[in-house]
Amino acid sequence: MLSSLYVSAVLAASLSAVTAQTFQRLGTCPTLGCVLPPDQQDFLPGQQFDIRFEVHAPKNGSEAFNGGVPDDKFTATISKDGRSPKTISSFFKISEPAIEKWTFSWFEDLFAKDAKTPSVVNVASKVYRRVALYEPGTYTVTLKYYSGKTTTATWAVRPLATKKKAKNVIFFIGDGMTTNMITAARLLAHKTVNGKYQSLLQLDKFPVLGHQMTHSIDSFITDSANSASALYSGHKSTVNAMGVYADSSPDAFDDPKVETIVELLKRIWGSAWGAVSTAFIADATPIALTAHTRLRSQYGALIEQALNGVTNYSWPSAGGPDAYFGGGAEQFLPGPGSYKGKDYYAEFAKHGYSVSLNKTGLLAAPNNKKALGIFCKSNLPVWLDRNIFPENTKKLNNTPSGASGTATDLPGLKDMTLKAIDVLHTRAGKGGFFLMAEAASIDKQMHVLDYERALGDLLELDDTVQATIAKLKALGELEETLIVVSADHGHGFDVFGSSDTKYMAAQDDDRAKRDAIGVYLNSGLSQYTSPPPSGNVSYGTGPNFPLNWDPRYVIAAGLGANPDHREQYGVDKSGPRVPAEPVTDDDEDYYVNPTDRPHGFVVNGTLPTDQAQGVHSLTDVPVYAMGPCQDSFGGTYSNIDVFYKMAECLGLGQPTNKTITDKGRRH
Amino acid sequence: MLSSLYVSAVLAASLSAVTAQTFQRLGTCPTLGCVLPPDQQDFLPGQQFDIRFEVHAPKNGSEAFNGGVPDDKFTATISKDGRSPKTISSFFKISEPAIEKWTFSWFEDLFAKDAKTPSVVNVASKVYRRVALYEPGTYTVTLKYYSGKTTTATWAVRPLATKKKAKNVIFFIGDGMTTNMITAARLLAHKTVNGKYQSLLQLDKFPVLGHQMTHSIDSFITDSANSASALYSGHKSTVNAMGVYADSSPDAFDDPKVETIVELLKRIWGSAWGAVSTAFIADATPIALTAHTRLRSQYGALIEQALNGVTNYSWPSAGGPDAYFGGGAEQFLPGPGSYKGKDYYAEFAKHGYSVSLNKTGLLAAPNNKKALGIFCKSNLPVWLDRNIFPENTKKLNNTPSGASGTATDLPGLKDMTLKAIDVLHTRAGKGGFFLMAEAASIDKQMHVLDYERALGDLLELDDTVQATIAKLKALGELEETLIVVSADHGHGFDVFGSSDTKYMAAQDDDRAKRDAIGVYLNSGLSQYTSPPPSGNVSYGTGPNFPLNWDPRYVIAAGLGANPDHREQYGVDKSGPRVPAEPVTDDDEDYYVNPTDRPHGFVVNGTLPTDQAQGVHSLTDVPVYAMGPCQDSFGGTYSNIDVFYKMAECLGLGQPTNKTITDKGRRH
Repeated sequence: MLSSLYVSAVLAASLSAVTAQTFQRLGTCPTLGCVLPPDQQDFLPGQQFDIRFEVHAPKNGSEAFNGGVPDDKFTATISKDGRSPKTISSFFKISEPAIEKWTFSWFEDLFAKDAKTPSVVNVASKVYRRVALYEPGTYTVTLKYYSGKTTTATWAVRPLATKKKAKNVIFFIGDGMTTNMITAARLLAHKTVNGKYQSLLQLDKFPVLGHQMTHSIDSFITDSANSASALYSGHKSTVNAMGVYADSSPDAFDDPKVETIVELLKRIWGSAWGAVSTAFIADATPIALTAHTRLRSQYGALIEQALNGVTNYSWPSAGGPDAYFGGGAEQFLPGPGSYKGKDYYAEFAKHGYSVSLNKTGLLAAPNNKKALGIFCKSNLPVWLDRNIFPENTKKLNNTPSGASGTATDLPGLKDMTLKAIDVLHTRAGKGGFFLMAEAASIDKQMHVLDYERALGDLLELDDTVQATIAKLKALGELEETLIVVSADHGHGFDVFGSSDTKYMAAQDDDRAKRDAIGVYLNSGLSQYTSPPPSGNVSYGTGPNFPLNWDPRYVIAAGLGANPDHREQYGVDKSGPRVPAEPVTDDDEDYYVNPTDRPHGFVVNGTLPTDQAQGVHSLTDVPVYAMGPCQDSFGGTYSNIDVFYKMAECLGLGQPTNKTITDKGRRH
Repeated sequence: MLSSLYVSAVLAASLSAVTAQTFQRLGTCPTLGCVLPPDQQDFLPGQQFDIRFEVHAPKNGSEAFNGGVPDDKFTATISKDGRSPKTISSFFKISEPAIEKWTFSWFEDLFAKDAKTPSVVNVASKVYRRVALYEPGTYTVTLKYYSGKTTTATWAVRPLATKKKAKNVIFFIGDGMTTNMITAARLLAHKTVNGKYQSLLQLDKFPVLGHQMTHSIDSFITDSANSASALYSGHKSTVNAMGVYADSSPDAFDDPKVETIVELLKRIWGSAWGAVSTAFIADATPIALTAHTRLRSQYGALIEQALNGVTNYSWPSAGGPDAYFGGGAEQFLPGPGSYKGKDYYAEFAKHGYSVSLNKTGLLAAPNNKKALGIFCKSNLPVWLDRNIFPENTKKLNNTPSGASGTATDLPGLKDMTLKAIDVLHTRAGKGGFFLMAEAASIDKQMHVLDYERALGDLLELDDTVQATIAKLKALGELEETLIVVSADHGHGFDVFGSSDTKYMAAQDDDRAKRDAIGVYLNSGLSQYTSPPPSGNVSYGTGPNFPLNWDPRYVIAAGLGANPDHREQYGVDKSGPRVPAEPVTDDDEDYYVNPTDRPHGFVVNGTLPTDQAQGVHSLTDVPVYAMGPCQDSFGGTYSNIDVFYKMAECLGLGQPTNKTITDKGRRH
């Protein structure tokens, strides 16, 4: 079965890939019959999920078929390890769903987009909700349609893992963080003497290192929604999707779902869980713990899902986070950003949450109650602006209360993470806890080519990991806690030399300015770890950060992919960067921002001119692990394996529909 | 002692770093008194090395001192773990050397360079040759000069490691290879179905993964000489230097040396050893096994050193390689490229070597004799040109015999490596063997932004590692062989999307061409693993390489640092790339090459305009290990630790001047 499948998949892929690459009809479905979850997917035993079948009838374009009439008499079966196939409804003992129909359109390539000639596809579909496979092994799902066409999907249910080996898991995500950035951050914050580092990053001290592959199910570059979802559920998806396999229907909330790690933990062990982020809390990385949608931009609705679970379909609830700290007041203040315009501070409070709007409130919140902390609108200001250039934070109109003015008394990632541990440790019963803590602006600042602000937030993450280890030790929980630090994807960043800021500023033309850059031997040594020449500047940021963010000789760095921009190198003291902007406000054609980095030289971009920022990259990202099950994180693997390694360590692979009784839960 | 040293080092560094960064007087010597090896260096017990002291008297410039007269009455002592200090000659029981004097000059910064105002330094120096420290612990070396000035160096001798745990070590170096490139190579050569790889790289299957930091002793960006030397000797050095600490003297061969892994192996265990490279064999990575020089460009002299060892000073000899395969006939043919104009084919033959000049000869060479194989002038043509576009190799005038015409019947990295194993396995006695095999053109092709050619050579390396494992298994040596695969440094490369080559070629202006690039979801799937649409192209390159090197949708990739160039993406079928060239032949001001990538768009550079190519980058590089001692290679560490891990596994840390008798050696 498998080998004939490969042959047909290869043929189909080579046919459709010739026409469809930049755009795809449905990435997981190169033929006209779609099985979701598609071929080659893995499942944790007992993990709940939905199944959708689609039959496509393209009306026009290179794939036009059957006059645009989809076969609504398709049939589907499932069989395990060669046993006789059963219909989906009989196998899972559920009732047969009704046929759904819709139409969508897409462009086959850029020529078709320019010519405004979309291909239109009519669809017939069925979805089977909330099933699970308990027995490890190989399952074959067969969709038959158009009297003789067949699409087959082979699914693997992984081995049982019923024993909980780690009481707690803390999963740190440096959004967009690569090995290259970690290397650069070490250079800035840690001193060398004759090539020997006198101190190291906390990450450098982890006993186990691995690499994970971040690509999407249907594209080799991922976004943070899709990759977070893979890390939390063991199922890759499509850009902008989380906790679902993206289908072709217009509804962003009807796509076939998969159970996430916090839903599994709550159902099976009644564990406490939390999420902390320096982004707005409805952003992809924190929200993907509970989100089930094809559209990550449905921020308000996703906060509702985080609090109350999926309500339009029967689905295991994660019970609401026990600790939930970050930015993003827009989804909590009553208004256009919140779900149905409701006041989500009040909604959370109704469910027993303490609500903090600043660091003082956060630290004072009771550890035995569920805790919500929202400290500003949008993302938290970055570490560099909070700690080194605080004037920049005062320009913002971002109070979490909705009052006019600037959010003050802001916590950082370390404050939020340590408080979350206090709350989770206090609230967790035997089921332990799961905490995800995200350094979000490594990614956000790399997007705008602001290398120093990105690296500052990376150092804040490293400092937070160090403080977390000390905290767990003090609580007596270190030996029972698996700590994993990883990323969701990369940016093509690297340092390639130093730049003499004084020399560059003194040159008149763009080519002469480039002579300020020193490569190889002329890169010299890091000046970030030496006190400033004046000797009287101290940022008071402690041993894990640079002594001088603004030396004469700075790192010269770059990304492989840029919008038009100007490179000057060195920190921008006036706040986060806007490298490119459109000529008119309603335009999407970006040119170099004439006010950005005025002493630098112009570099024309390598991205489509409708991109205002840099983009994610392909590279595998590092995984650091310590604690129970640490050895399973060595070597190279897929991002979905990070989920399976954590889930197996947490005993989440169960042979029955294990559901903790309400009695066993803490509320 | 240590803490007061830190204080003075910090002050000194902050003073001198303000003036000197792009250029340094002597990178390991921020004060006017220099100890080489400098502060903070590590040693293997019994590893032989030289010690040099220098006292600097700058005549002019910001550091001008003592009227430019260096103190030639300086004194130096050494003490262990707080015992009373002894003079160097009494501690090591060697005679006191004579004072040497010289003058050198340097520029303090780019303004001084532009103004042509060098700083001139007079030097007094002494060098103590061929000493060793046998007792693990901390040693303090104190240089006193100018009646009261002091420079202190603290050295650490690592623990003894007397037991040989691995019989053999095979060390693969992907020159310039990063995790980002490995990720891209996997995408090109291995097929995914719905996000799941159907096969993997051999590197992906290694049980242990680590990261090593590649920076120099005196600059944060390294070159391949310096980094190879750190990997082979446990001592970081300066760009262009190998097997020595760079001093300030004009002689490129009098710098203080350190013993390398093959010199140690030959002296202690009489092991066989070999080097294989796709570069010219006198290039940095292969030659650093035996080279002791500050100038890597002394190619002819370094081949003489490889064959006969250091002859101007008493020094342990590595005894000449048992297998030595690569390009670089220029250093073997009698003429300007060879040492003293001699015929080094004849010199090697005199020492009992078989000499092969093509693949047929290589494969036929006897396994029980030492073997030299030089297959072309300069570097070997890359895998892509040897295997996919062989017409390109026919343009070259590169026969290894010196006859006019093209080198034919070329071996690849796999052929050379497997033959080297046959020779080494046959010749090795109880002492086992050490083989270094280098994929050199990953680096060389990244330098010229030729992503496909670089990735082709990376895939050749991976294929070679796979074949090596199979070979060792067949020989019954796998369990006794430590295999390490790593790199010497990176290039800031990453893939950020796909590009529609057809669409780009059809657009007229540079901004419109950039619209051909698809990012995130629009990156789509790799077309390199699908057969070409015509269905009738087969390169016959097997399962570990792409099926189609020239699909319509190609990877869009970039480096953070470039000369002016044109980006078109996709393979260049006409041969390796020249991205930038000067307007006139004698010029060093590089502009985009008007004949390169004619359908692409222009990207102005981010490097000094005298740079014709891309440059190395900062990033930590991966280390893959399997076999005896594999677990010691996990986590994050310095490149020198790769040496110590290998040396400790090989029992090279000895408490006496252990030297195998001639009887014990194989010749």
